[in-house]
Amino acid sequence: MSLRVGVVGATGYVGAELARWILGHPHLTLSAATSRDHAGAPLAQAVPALEGFTDVRLSAPDSAALCALDVVMLATPHGVSRTLVGDLATAPIIVDLSRDHRHAPGWVYGQPEWNGAALPGATRIAAPGCFATALILSTAPLIASGAAAGPLSIVAATGSTGSGATPKSAAHHPTRFVNLRAYKVLQHQHIPEVRGMLEQLGQTPDLRFVPWSAPVDRGIFATTLLTPRSGADIAAIFADAYETAPLVRLREESPALRCVRGSVLADIAVEQRDGAAAVLCAIDNLGRGAAGQAIAALNLALGLPADEGLRFIPLTP
Amino acid sequence: MSLRVGVVGATGYVGAELARWILGHPHLTLSAATSRDHAGAPLAQAVPALEGFTDVRLSAPDSAALCALDVVMLATPHGVSRTLVGDLATAPIIVDLSRDHRHAPGWVYGQPEWNGAALPGATRIAAPGCFATALILSTAPLIASGAAAGPLSIVAATGSTGSGATPKSAAHHPTRFVNLRAYKVLQHQHIPEVRGMLEQLGQTPDLRFVPWSAPVDRGIFATTLLTPRSGADIAAIFADAYETAPLVRLREESPALRCVRGSVLADIAVEQRDGAAAVLCAIDNLGRGAAGQAIAALNLALGLPADEGLRFIPLTP
Amino acid sequence: MSLRVGVVGATGYVGAELARWILGHPHLTLSAATSRDHAGAPLAQAVPALEGFTDVRLSAPDSAALCALDVVMLATPHGVSRTLVGDLATAPIIVDLSRDHRHAPGWVYGQPEWNGAALPGATRIAAPGCFATALILSTAPLIASGAAAGPLSIVAATGSTGSGATPKSAAHHPTRFVNLRAYKVLQHQHIPEVRGMLEQLGQTPDLRFVPWSAPVDRGIFATTLLTPRSGADIAAIFADAYETAPLVRLREESPALRCVRGSVLADIAVEQRDGAAAVLCAIDNLGRGAAGQAIAALNLALGLPADEGLRFIPLTP
Amino acid sequence: MSLRVGVVGATGYVGAELARWILGHPHLTLSAATSRDHAGAPLAQAVPALEGFTDVRLSAPDSAALCALDVVMLATPHGVSRTLVGDLATAPIIVDLSRDHRHAPGWVYGQPEWNGAALPGATRIAAPGCFATALILSTAPLIASGAAAGPLSIVAATGSTGSGATPKSAAHHPTRFVNLRAYKVLQHQHIPEVRGMLEQLGQTPDLRFVPWSAPVDRGIFATTLLTPRSGADIAAIFADAYETAPLVRLREESPALRCVRGSVLADIAVEQRDGAAAVLCAIDNLGRGAAGQAIAALNLALGLPADEGLRFIPLTP
Repeated sequence: MSLRVGVVGATGYVGAELARWILGHPHLTLSAATSRDHAGAPLAQAVPALEGFTDVRLSAPDSAALCALDVVMLATPHGVSRTLVGDLATAPIIVDLSRDHRHAPGWVYGQPEWNGAALPGATRIAAPGCFATALILSTAPLIASGAAAGPLSIVAATGSTGSGATPKSAAHHPTRFVNLRAYKVLQHQHIPEVRGMLEQLGQTPDLRFVPWSAPVDRGIFATTLLTPRSGADIAAIFADAYETAPLVRLREESPALRCVRGSVLADIAVEQRDGAAAVLCAIDNLGRGAAGQAIAALNLALGLPADEGLRFIPLTP
Repeated sequence: MSLRVGVVGATGYVGAELARWILGHPHLTLSAATSRDHAGAPLAQAVPALEGFTDVRLSAPDSAALCALDVVMLATPHGVSRTLVGDLATAPIIVDLSRDHRHAPGWVYGQPEWNGAALPGATRIAAPGCFATALILSTAPLIASGAAAGPLSIVAATGSTGSGATPKSAAHHPTRFVNLRAYKVLQHQHIPEVRGMLEQLGQTPDLRFVPWSAPVDRGIFATTLLTPRSGADIAAIFADAYETAPLVRLREESPALRCVRGSVLADIAVEQRDGAAAVLCAIDNLGRGAAGQAIAALNLALGLPADEGLRFIPLTP
Repeated sequence: MSLRVGVVGATGYVGAELARWILGHPHLTLSAATSRDHAGAPLAQAVPALEGFTDVRLSAPDSAALCALDVVMLATPHGVSRTLVGDLATAPIIVDLSRDHRHAPGWVYGQPEWNGAALPGATRIAAPGCFATALILSTAPLIASGAAAGPLSIVAATGSTGSGATPKSAAHHPTRFVNLRAYKVLQHQHIPEVRGMLEQLGQTPDLRFVPWSAPVDRGIFATTLLTPRSGADIAAIFADAYETAPLVRLREESPALRCVRGSVLADIAVEQRDGAAAVLCAIDNLGRGAAGQAIAALNLALGLPADEGLRFIPLTP
Repeated sequence: MSLRVGVVGATGYVGAELARWILGHPHLTLSAATSRDHAGAPLAQAVPALEGFTDVRLSAPDSAALCALDVVMLATPHGVSRTLVGDLATAPIIVDLSRDHRHAPGWVYGQPEWNGAALPGATRIAAPGCFATALILSTAPLIASGAAAGPLSIVAATGSTGSGATPKSAAHHPTRFVNLRAYKVLQHQHIPEVRGMLEQLGQTPDLRFVPWSAPVDRGIFATTLLTPRSGADIAAIFADAYETAPLVRLREESPALRCVRGSVLADIAVEQRDGAAAVLCAIDNLGRGAAGQAIAALNLALGLPADEGLRFIPLTP
């Protein structure tokens, strides 16, 4: 099988990450990459890390040309994808990485571990966001098992690539460096997406979420604190939940951003003592939190193993 | 007033930070600095940032010489201070920055905001630790007011100087850089110190604490999540608690490590919505979390304003 | 003596750094701070690190009000200062930190070590740029003594604050972090400023300069490689040149950005062996490379010691 | 072809990097990994990033077992390799990544671009060091062509992994972070290795080298300044030299550490103007500067393309 893939918005961070994964995938070919700003230039000029790995030239988005491909992947800003999709009605498969179609009718939420059963054969896939991915992976086993009494208190830190490729204050090096701060405290926009997924598991979660802005480029590191129900063995619940998941690694020690950097892996550990429990989760926000997970969902839609073409070995250190 | 101060363990990070504060203090003179390893060398050779600001030479610790000074400050490893103090019985004032005498009989816990009333005239002062400082400042108003229902869920990240000046795995640059991880999950050794302080305020707190190791050098950034009791106005409680505290700044926006770096300030903000509240606190672990706060306690012991000699203006950015 | 100072452009990085130094200076008072964008807001709201240290409110620039002060300091973009100065003809003293008046007629170049003799009584002072400062301090002793045969080969790295407070691609955290790159190779715009100063010392230098962009926020770290003339003792030449300079520290070991961070100090070391020599220089680009050095020049203009109000003790670590 | 490879010293940074490359190589199998300290433990426990990618257990070094493999790769400290090799006389192929056998009799220096012709069939390969690699790639075209008049002035910065996995002062996070400094100025131990290679090209180079310690984990970034001989076109010389080299990318813009991170690529750019020239080079010190280049040399020894199994696509950003 060899599918021709077009990436819309290929010069953003999610688009460039998609290109990286597609170029290394045995069944996908990067056939088109669009960019309004850089049309005509080689992709590897706009994304210099790709020099030597692709001859694809950037083009302006062209619906007819995109619909002639096998797969269209939208790495466009929130709000733009919705508009584009109207012109892509005949595209065989669309994967939207923006938030525009998450839990939208006719679209399948592309979370491999918790919505994987819905993915085979799907042709309209909405890929999860980065915070949502870390929070779903950290809390879904609790929700599905009913093991938590009371609220889930979550602190999760994000790297600066989460702010996108366009320079902005929140990702300005002089203020990001040597710093930690919180933002959108108790009101983060990703919470509805998380609830949307968790409520399918049968319980309405009480989530309290504080996102931090961390001085790293890639990664989401999350800690969830909870009160286990009497007798609940949280580690066992996670072991059951992820036993056969190829893109989750259960850890004895704390996960670390370093060990998942560049990969689609989610590293998770659980600690329980004195009537409390903590769930720790580390992912790469562009790998597992965006492009890589979108490919995993596409793999499942195509009948391939979730981790096909995604077995990137993280660096040490 | 001009007091002669000796710093024991002056080449560690806490000792060097003490030297910085003492050299800039209008009523303190750095008269002695000891180091077993560097005795005989100029202090500014072992601590090159101090070049040009002091001619003090390092000496081996000498109890008699130290007792002849006005103040002895112990920046020695945990366990060493206890031994040293036996030979310093005639020292007029001792400030111990290790954990050896926190809540020990005859010693006053040097936390300016919550134990300040006990400090005037004190001659044996045990300075708080860095995590304990951030956690006490974040939770004491809740405990004193009884405003929280249920547990306090806390995530706090520390900079690498918290591991000390001796190279070790946890502070090895290749693994610390580009990383976030947790450690001692739900079991941190600073919790008893925090409880010791909070229980004096009349309530036994249920603290759940996950420390993170962050890729910065200085700072503690803490987030406390809680369920407020019905009707409790958490922001008002914090405003009351710290209204006149010269070394606390209540913030509308999230605190940021950058804005307290190098200072003794604690920046704190509160957010409350939908039945939950979050307390955010940023301090410099060596400034507010160790040496600077020890000087603040000494100031109070001497009848000086808490922030005497400590009005360092943080850098931008 | 107490002089009222106005800072034009107080919310940029150079302006905020000026405010920091002025607020800590025994003979200067921060009387006005202007900002087109934030007029009406407290300065400490736009520059949160200053909270608690000043009640000054930002105002729109008003020439008449500025001329009524004792000193006007222009932390405005290149090109803007030139325009402003036309309306500030009656201002008693103007210090321009942009490049608009460096080596302009009627203006004194505010480099304390090499143009200090021209500063007493000066009322129009053009403060040097950050790269120029590091390069002048590194090369002027060589030029003044004629000790170098052939070209001076210079590599110098800058921190991200050199790009200013407005987010832009060169200072975008995701690309700056974990990175080193060069830019404007052999063609940097600061070279004419350096030549302007050095030619006054009697020799036209052959400078070859490659600036690097480094993943730190503050600092310039420079290495100059040269062939010493036969018999020249480069270390002795530097010792002579800076023996009495209060804001230069000659070092045995390599300087380090850490040890000058936040200060107006320049740390310099020299190594000579096998027919070659290297000069190493570390400064803080906002402290020594902009605002702090401007205050030092103002000090000299006012008859004060160069380092009055500038004796900031750098942090360890 | 499938060769069984043993890595001696697999838990150091070079050893772990070797494991990463071998695990992803189509013709190599990681059959043994030794460690004196962790013998018996799974490799993925000592090197957690490898979890899920290998079941190999660490063993104590055993000469007989190693000699039974097809390839032994020594990622042992300088001095240790020399001793080990005595017991590995019957090993079919040995690749030593320490400096013990560089330019030693009977060993082939494993630099693919400049010693590639000597590699096919080699059974004793000494892999180059990280600084040496960056310096050879930057200067060999100049030396081979005789295009430079006078000395080569070189500044090159290294990441902290160059100091190894054992915590030590030079790689202690609190002092490495937010810092730049130089060390071993004009006397670096890698210069003889570089001269050894360059002198084979017919000219004794006058190298002046200042290494910097940079606040990144991986990478060598080098700038070489020189005076071109009259009429020399340095860019053309480099284009000729590396036209067909699969692991070199010639760049229009400055190379950047980010764009080679994790790869075996060397990115190089040249600038020439006003009688001077600059050569810029970026490599990953563990990828191109150690393990990856060693595999490239092994590939050539085995008759494979130099970049076989090494076509890692660098991340953006």
